[in-house]
Amino acid sequence: MPVKIERLAIIGLGLIGSSIARAVKARGLAATIVACDASDFVRARVSELRLADVVTADAADAVREADLVISCIPVGGNGALSQAIGPHLKPGAIVTDVGSVKGAVLRDMAPHLPEHVHFIPGHPIAGAETSGPDAGFAELFDNRWTILTPPEGADEAAITLLRSFWESMGALVEIMTTDHHDLVLAITSHLPHLIAYNIVGTAADLEAVTQSEVIKFSAGGFRDFTRIAASDPTMWRDVFLTNKDAVLEMLGRFNEDLAALQRMIRWGDGDGLHDLFTRTRSIRKGIVALGQETAEPDFGRRKSAASAPEVQDKAILTK
Amino acid sequence: MPVKIERLAIIGLGLIGSSIARAVKARGLAATIVACDASDFVRARVSELRLADVVTADAADAVREADLVISCIPVGGNGALSQAIGPHLKPGAIVTDVGSVKGAVLRDMAPHLPEHVHFIPGHPIAGAETSGPDAGFAELFDNRWTILTPPEGADEAAITLLRSFWESMGALVEIMTTDHHDLVLAITSHLPHLIAYNIVGTAADLEAVTQSEVIKFSAGGFRDFTRIAASDPTMWRDVFLTNKDAVLEMLGRFNEDLAALQRMIRWGDGDGLHDLFTRTRSIRKGIVALGQETAEPDFGRRKSAASAPEVQDKAILTK
Repeated sequence: MPVKIERLAIIGLGLIGSSIARAVKARGLAATIVACDASDFVRARVSELRLADVVTADAADAVREADLVISCIPVGGNGALSQAIGPHLKPGAIVTDVGSVKGAVLRDMAPHLPEHVHFIPGHPIAGAETSGPDAGFAELFDNRWTILTPPEGADEAAITLLRSFWESMGALVEIMTTDHHDLVLAITSHLPHLIAYNIVGTAADLEAVTQSEVIKFSAGGFRDFTRIAASDPTMWRDVFLTNKDAVLEMLGRFNEDLAALQRMIRWGDGDGLHDLFTRTRSIRKGIVALGQETAEPDFGRRKSAASAPEVQDKAILTK
Repeated sequence: MPVKIERLAIIGLGLIGSSIARAVKARGLAATIVACDASDFVRARVSELRLADVVTADAADAVREADLVISCIPVGGNGALSQAIGPHLKPGAIVTDVGSVKGAVLRDMAPHLPEHVHFIPGHPIAGAETSGPDAGFAELFDNRWTILTPPEGADEAAITLLRSFWESMGALVEIMTTDHHDLVLAITSHLPHLIAYNIVGTAADLEAVTQSEVIKFSAGGFRDFTRIAASDPTMWRDVFLTNKDAVLEMLGRFNEDLAALQRMIRWGDGDGLHDLFTRTRSIRKGIVALGQETAEPDFGRRKSAASAPEVQDKAILTK
C-alpha cells in the first residue's frame, strides 16, 4: 500500500531531489511538498515547474513541521545542513538523505540531529549524467534499488515507513550497514566513475592524436566513458573525498589486475587474454537478466538516433 | 552516386561481414554477393537469412572472379587467409579488410597478395557487443566513420572506388596512414576495451562484495562497462596482440594520469578533482554535437526499458 506523508521537505532540487518531487506528486505520496534550495535559479525553476507546494531558501523553515526530511545535496554539505536544521526538527520526524557515501553522512549528520528524530541514511542507485531541476523525472527510481543504512538501534517503524516510501516511488529496497554500502558502491559506482574521468582526461591531453580525432572516432568504445565522465563535478568530488578508503582499496585491486593484463599484452599471452575476455561476458548477462540494463545491443542507442543532430557541425572538426 | 560492384566476396560473416552483406543487398550495391565462412553454423545461418547469392567454405573459390574482396575475420587470421586466396585473385581486384588494427594487417597480408591486385586496408568504426551473422544489420555503418589506410603508391582509382563503396553504405570516409590509425584507435577504442575488461574482471574477483551485489547495484555506473566487456573475445585478443606498442603507450599515459588522480584522492585535493571532472564534460558535448552519440541522458536507455525483462529471475541472486 502506498504511504502518505503529511509534510515532506526536500533539501536540494537537483536531478535526484526534483525526481523525488515529481514521483511524490505523480503518485500522491505527500499532502504537502516543501522544496528548499540555496540557488535562486533552482528555486525559480522549481516554482515554474510546480514541483512543490512551498519553495524556500531557508532550510530551518523548510523542515519545521516536516514529517519526512530528505537531504538531496552533495554529500560534503550534509554536516552544515544538519547543524542548521537540527534545532528545528519536529519530534518523531524521519531524516534521510540520498548521498552516494553513507559512512561520512552518518559521521557528519548524526551528531547534529536531536534524539527525538529518526535518522536513517539512504541511497537510491539511480541517476543520469544530467544535473539540475529540469533533468529529473518521476520514473527515475522505477525498478532500481535504494539502499537504506539504518544505524544500530534505529526505530523499526521508521525504517518500515521509509522503505514503503521508496517502494511507493517504484524502487526496490535493500538494507545494509554503512561500511558494506560504501564498499559495494566503491566498486559498482565510484571506481567506474574514477576510471571514466581518468581515460577522458588522458585522451584530452594527447599530442599525437587531436581532440577532434578523439571525438570523431569515439564510436569505437571511448564515447561510452564520456557519458559517466559528464556527471556532476561537485557531487563526484565529494564522493571521492568522503569514501577515500574504500575507493583506494578498490583502485589498488584494479591496478594490480591492470598490471597483470599489461604483462599479458607485452608478452603476447593470447590464452590469458582470451580467458579474461570470456569470463567478463557472463556478468553482463546477469545484469540484463535482472532488469538492471536494457537487453538491446549498444544500449538501444539506435532507437534514439533519430533525435541525434546531423553531421553538419564542421566547425568542431577544425584542428 | 552509389557504386555497383559486379562480384563481391565477403570472408567471415560475423557482425561486420553480415552487416556489409545486408547493407549491400538493401542498397543494391553488388550484382552477386559471395559469402565465405569456415563455420558450418554460420554458413547455414547465412543461407537461411538469404544474405548472399553464393555460400562457400572455400576462400579460394570465394575470391575467384571477385572484383572486391573484404576480409571480415579476426585480424590474427589475415596472414593465413591472404596466403590461401593470393593465387586465386583476379587481376585488378580490390582486396580490403575491416580489422581494428592496420599495421599488422598490412604486414601480414601484403606479402601474400599478387602485384596485379589493389590492396587497401580499411576499418569501419562501428560495431556492437553482439557477434555472429544474426547480430548484423544494414544500418550499422550509417553516419559512422570508416578509415582507409592505402599503402604508399596505391592506385587512386581503386581508393576512389572503395571510398564510394563505403559511402554508398552510409559511411563517412577518412584516409590516414596505418601508424596514425593504430595510435588513434589505441585511445578511442582499444584502451577503453582494455579498461572495461579489467574493471569487470576486478569486480568478479572480489570477496567482500558478492557477484550478485555487483550485478544488483550496477546501475551506479558499472553496467556501462559491462557492455564493452561483453565484446567478442577472439577479436579483442587479436587486437591487443597485434597493436601492442600503441596500446602499451596509451596505457602508460593512462596509468600516469591515474596515479596522479589517486594521489589527489589520498591527499584530499578537492580542487584538483573538481578541475578534472569539469574539463571532461566538454568532450562528450563534442561527440554529441557531431552526431556520434545520442543526445539523450543515459544513452536513451529508458526508451528501451519496455523490452527489458521484469525482475523475476531471483535465482541469479543466490549468493
